[in-house]
Amino acid sequence: MGTPGREGSVDVSRRNPIASWMCAMLYCFASYIMADVLLGESPLHYFNNTSHILLATAVWYLIFYCPLNLFYKCVAFMPVKLVLTAMKEVVRVRKISMGVIHAHHAYHHGWIIMALVGWAKGAGVALISNFEQLIRGVWKPETNEFLNMSFPTKASLVGAVIFTLQQARWLPISKHNIVFLFTIFMVVTKIFMTATHSHGSPFAPIEAFICPIVFGNACGIYDDHDRVCSRDNVQSCTPCNLSPYTAKTKEELNEGTRKKKCKKTE
Amino acid sequence: MGTPGREGSVDVSRRNPIASWMCAMLYCFASYIMADVLLGESPLHYFNNTSHILLATAVWYLIFYCPLNLFYKCVAFMPVKLVLTAMKEVVRVRKISMGVIHAHHAYHHGWIIMALVGWAKGAGVALISNFEQLIRGVWKPETNEFLNMSFPTKASLVGAVIFTLQQARWLPISKHNIVFLFTIFMVVTKIFMTATHSHGSPFAPIEAFICPIVFGNACGIYDDHDRVCSRDNVQSCTPCNLSPYTAKTKEELNEGTRKKKCKKTE
Amino acid sequence: MGTPGREGSVDVSRRNPIASWMCAMLYCFASYIMADVLLGESPLHYFNNTSHILLATAVWYLIFYCPLNLFYKCVAFMPVKLVLTAMKEVVRVRKISMGVIHAHHAYHHGWIIMALVGWAKGAGVALISNFEQLIRGVWKPETNEFLNMSFPTKASLVGAVIFTLQQARWLPISKHNIVFLFTIFMVVTKIFMTATHSHGSPFAPIEAFICPIVFGNACGIYDDHDRVCSRDNVQSCTPCNLSPYTAKTKEELNEGTRKKKCKKTE
Repeated sequence: MGTPGREGSVDVSRRNPIASWMCAMLYCFASYIMADVLLGESPLHYFNNTSHILLATAVWYLIFYCPLNLFYKCVAFMPVKLVLTAMKEVVRVRKISMGVIHAHHAYHHGWIIMALVGWAKGAGVALISNFEQLIRGVWKPETNEFLNMSFPTKASLVGAVIFTLQQARWLPISKHNIVFLFTIFMVVTKIFMTATHSHGSPFAPIEAFICPIVFGNACGIYDDHDRVCSRDNVQSCTPCNLSPYTAKTKEELNEGTRKKKCKKTE
Repeated sequence: MGTPGREGSVDVSRRNPIASWMCAMLYCFASYIMADVLLGESPLHYFNNTSHILLATAVWYLIFYCPLNLFYKCVAFMPVKLVLTAMKEVVRVRKISMGVIHAHHAYHHGWIIMALVGWAKGAGVALISNFEQLIRGVWKPETNEFLNMSFPTKASLVGAVIFTLQQARWLPISKHNIVFLFTIFMVVTKIFMTATHSHGSPFAPIEAFICPIVFGNACGIYDDHDRVCSRDNVQSCTPCNLSPYTAKTKEELNEGTRKKKCKKTE
Repeated sequence: MGTPGREGSVDVSRRNPIASWMCAMLYCFASYIMADVLLGESPLHYFNNTSHILLATAVWYLIFYCPLNLFYKCVAFMPVKLVLTAMKEVVRVRKISMGVIHAHHAYHHGWIIMALVGWAKGAGVALISNFEQLIRGVWKPETNEFLNMSFPTKASLVGAVIFTLQQARWLPISKHNIVFLFTIFMVVTKIFMTATHSHGSPFAPIEAFICPIVFGNACGIYDDHDRVCSRDNVQSCTPCNLSPYTAKTKEELNEGTRKKKCKKTE
């Protein structure tokens, strides 16, 4: 039910409705398409659910062509947006869980396949965003979701690994409980981030602790910051405050409202 | 049986016969490859027809390496070209029809899958042209067939939708008749366009009527025109005559003989 | 078991371990992934061998994060490197042979499919290097392995064709013998090339003989040379000595130690 990023999409929707529709479908059903491709099934498999496609098409039409832009204003209105965000995260966790089970049916002991398919189910469109953009005539090879992971992508990976461990019976907790707990975590975090226009990641302190030990560096936290600063020509930019809820990566900065870029500490 | 576009291909054929052969095969069998990929089968499935591949290889060899360029001059000779164009359209309509039936066998009620597979069968190489070009070392992300649809691509989409409606028994006409009528339409239109070096689309007046109502704009007809003019540095370019058979999109202009670019109306 | 190219990879491994791991896995198992994709199976099929993935992950970790870079220095030490190179070629020939047999099981008379799958098995990562680079944020559309084939890619193609001919019983020699002879050829050639830092191809004289006859030109041998010289700003560069073991293509030059670029003949 994700609404496509508005940047560039509006222009495409005006100039070419079919390309716009293709992008919207890829955006809505990317997770199903990716999981089907990764498991060797037809990428169009999910399109068998004609009613889902028609519903998504109706939403796409209203988002882009509704008179006075009413529909978009409606779903972008903060209280509505918070409810939709919460629902989206509930669906995401369910998708990850179903992805792990789907892969488990195909490969009973393929733990790595389960984690990867679960990840693809949770962060579908982010992982193929380069190719989704290509349909709109945009190509940004220097950025992709693997290089600059957003919070939902990281959380999906963590969720997929946890659900896979549970599936392998290495976690002393029932599937029902773990899905419930992870859903609560995702909904609360995402609502907090949406409401406060924050783009930090709750994983930042954990990464800041683990990365220097395991990978011998800070996983590019400072690098990313430097790049953001130099890109935006903020000459006097000082190191970002590394609190968990501070803007961290370029992607996250661009994605947001661009209001609270670098909290200058002095 | 499509012969590869000569621009750039000749250079590749001189420098690297294997890349040239790969491109030619992708060009000839793109529709089969795309349909197989979309239905989750092996992309090489069609290559099981060894005799077809050998025939296409012979044509490729003669097109590029025939002494004095005789073979190319032969097939590019207008009467021969018209016959080949007509045959190509007959094959295209048959491919669309077979694509819809093929998808129907896999997904009995997947009407959207049928239309998409039929479209891919009819306009195969156009839809993957970005990746076909990539093998030749060319990458044009800002153009693709979704953004600037040529007439055959649009006609294939229309045909695929009509054949799907017929398959769903929503059209009071037999399959045989509808294939026959659509073949006549395609052959006549394409021969007329080839003979007159016209690159307009018979769909233009329908689009000009429907788009402002449904999508609230003229679907970028003027935008496309403006872009063509500014790109080609035609300073004094005036709005193209929007008659159905006038050059409309950049793609169509580039594709053709570049003789009748913008019919200046004054 | 291939170790990822160090250029750019080290930077990615410092900034984003997950993207680095993805690249390493794609690099190690590209041949399996490509063969599975070409035969319509799941691209993750090979990842069912969890132990192989864990071994590759361990090697990846040691290569990039071992203190003092000890592991890399170890495997890059010439005697060790020669042994690993020899083992790699043995595995490559076995992979090509298995790829041909794998395709034979799926398509009993699909000789072209067998050759293509065998080629993909032998030269996996080279053929998808554009997309492997994309994960690292690098995009070089003007170069790909089809346009500038390295020696292993050409040898894999030759091997795949020979093994396919044997499979079709058109060669009067047993499978065992032909695999043995081809392995000897690959191991000796590759060890010689690695030991002498040579980047020429033993196929060069054969190509120089066949290409002008079949394709009416020298297959761009001089063109490639010119491009290399002009790129590296070697103003006084003279035509390379076209002996079989001389640097020939840009790709091969880049790949190596960059020490003996153009053996100046004067």
